Amino acid sequence: MEPGLSPYAGRQARLRKKLGARDLPLQLVSNPSNIFYLTGFRGSAGMAVISPSEAVLWVDPRYTLQARSDARGVEVIEERGPILKAVARWLRKRNARRVAFEDSFTTVGQLRVLQREAREKVRFEPAREIIESLRCSKDPEEIGAIREASRVTAAAFKTVLPQVRPGIRESDLAAEIDYQMRLQGAEGPAFETIVASGARGALPHARPTGKLLEKSDLVIFDLGAILNGYASDMTRTVYLGKPPGRIRRLYNAVLEAQQTAVELLHEGQRCSEVDATARRVLERRGLGQYFTHSTGHGVGIDIHEKPRLVRTDETRLPVDCVVTVEPGVYLEGLGGIRLEDTVLVSAQGPEILTSAPMNDWCIS
Amino acid sequence: MEPGLSPYAGRQARLRKKLGARDLPLQLVSNPSNIFYLTGFRGSAGMAVISPSEAVLWVDPRYTLQARSDARGVEVIEERGPILKAVARWLRKRNARRVAFEDSFTTVGQLRVLQREAREKVRFEPAREIIESLRCSKDPEEIGAIREASRVTAAAFKTVLPQVRPGIRESDLAAEIDYQMRLQGAEGPAFETIVASGARGALPHARPTGKLLEKSDLVIFDLGAILNGYASDMTRTVYLGKPPGRIRRLYNAVLEAQQTAVELLHEGQRCSEVDATARRVLERRGLGQYFTHSTGHGVGIDIHEKPRLVRTDETRLPVDCVVTVEPGVYLEGLGGIRLEDTVLVSAQGPEILTSAPMNDWCIS
Repeated sequence: MEPGLSPYAGRQARLRKKLGARDLPLQLVSNPSNIFYLTGFRGSAGMAVISPSEAVLWVDPRYTLQARSDARGVEVIEERGPILKAVARWLRKRNARRVAFEDSFTTVGQLRVLQREAREKVRFEPAREIIESLRCSKDPEEIGAIREASRVTAAAFKTVLPQVRPGIRESDLAAEIDYQMRLQGAEGPAFETIVASGARGALPHARPTGKLLEKSDLVIFDLGAILNGYASDMTRTVYLGKPPGRIRRLYNAVLEAQQTAVELLHEGQRCSEVDATARRVLERRGLGQYFTHSTGHGVGIDIHEKPRLVRTDETRLPVDCVVTVEPGVYLEGLGGIRLEDTVLVSAQGPEILTSAPMNDWCIS
Repeated sequence: MEPGLSPYAGRQARLRKKLGARDLPLQLVSNPSNIFYLTGFRGSAGMAVISPSEAVLWVDPRYTLQARSDARGVEVIEERGPILKAVARWLRKRNARRVAFEDSFTTVGQLRVLQREAREKVRFEPAREIIESLRCSKDPEEIGAIREASRVTAAAFKTVLPQVRPGIRESDLAAEIDYQMRLQGAEGPAFETIVASGARGALPHARPTGKLLEKSDLVIFDLGAILNGYASDMTRTVYLGKPPGRIRRLYNAVLEAQQTAVELLHEGQRCSEVDATARRVLERRGLGQYFTHSTGHGVGIDIHEKPRLVRTDETRLPVDCVVTVEPGVYLEGLGGIRLEDTVLVSAQGPEILTSAPMNDWCIS
């Protein structure tokens, strides 16, 4: 990044262009992830307005110093009272007429306050995730951050793998993974780390428990790091012992589904087609019914963002978007197998960012 | 808890009574914290309806097994399509007329989908945080969980304290704290652990950085654990060296404000009065302007919940509510001092749950 230049000016400019195309001069931003994307400020509270000529960020006094030090290309206003009301007053003073708001983030109660304080003058219109759509295609700073978060995730897993054996607790392994991610530079886990062994692996979102790993368990590890505000997401499954033929066939089916779907990740590919392809691999082996979730999702500031690799998402992958590919099968009583990478859709095709082996999955 | 009995039936009954008093037969619940409170199911997605005679929980296939195993007093429905639409169809079939929804959680976009799918028949009315208000006063199971989360938090701090010395990184201390909380049984940190040293302490919500602790630094530690779905919250401040008189006076002022406010925590006390009292202690010493946030907040399933110990909250503390008391002063260039406990407002008065010393704050 050249001195004096920040990615935020460019992002704000892209947003203004999109707003202009819809004849919406102003956008209200209250989703903290969108505020971070547009200004560099990372707080749990605050609100911003992007207008054709201005960018303003309201924060409460807890965040004033942080906002003044971190935010770029935006005027920071400290507000000691309710921020919603301050923003509504500002809109009134500016004689704003039409204002886009984040209808998939703003609550019904918040809109009521805004509308009441702004009086009749302002018409609030659903933004329909304009900013979330901009965030699909990552700029070089973002790709660098996700790459680093992914590196830390894979490194932590590889460090902890030698401890994976019968007799250790799921929760202790999860604690070790989180600790290793931190030592490698992560700010923290991007979500609650999953270590689910044996029959518990059939719960795709199982919390780690005090259960001890046992011989002949399948063990799912689903982990991700946050680093510089960006997330990564990776899943590996191992087997404790020499797997019987049935487990081996299940694993290889998920592996083939995962790798086949990753290979499809090129600019212009339809999200729904990536999902359908992963699903077909499993269906051909009679396993379709056990693949109970979508194939993947975008990753960036949020652990789940646009696009979604799902039957109903007809968008085409833009260049430089980052998605997970994570097919899995879940058999009640037996357990689960899921394999997941965070993948960059570069101009040259798919690049796996979470590089930890998938072939070395039997621990004896 | 007697076998076969669960706290969820009682909570649902209390909600039905409140709804009845407002002549609102049905409540839609989509805030995961409220779903957990009413059913015991902890997932990132799902939606519930509480009616006079029924309780229904919709989950997607990722959560079916978990919901069937964890949820109590509620019928679990697996929904493979969009859950909002399934719920709206259910309401239509039941000929529902008036339905309370969580206006401080439901987004404008979600309400639009509900309204469209339910057609004209159903009128959705703001619930105005009925469930959040019920959650203020904790039942014995909840108090037990917060007590345990608080114990783990204090224990982790005491374990890490001997490592606090010049030359160690903020981020390494934060990683150690999180690791110790996990080893003690926490599911994870309740929020991103704060370790902010020297001038960085003037940012009340500073993220830990690679900064090394230095002699003559004030160091703020703000930490909390999640355990069995319940949070705790605690802050301690230490000084590295022999503090000059000015730092000592600042520390003692915050300590007095904290202890004075804790002593006020009796059933029936106004929240605004607790805030005013803490503030007066600091104002009398000319420090009012440096206390830039509210005095505290409720803690439970969420790290921030009702009530708030703030000038504008006129509610009276119910018995068995749990709140933090956390006055602080922040001086640009010098740093910050904040002292915080999680406190149970029992019938006998305040009981501090995060018991780690505050008097032993100088590390030489």
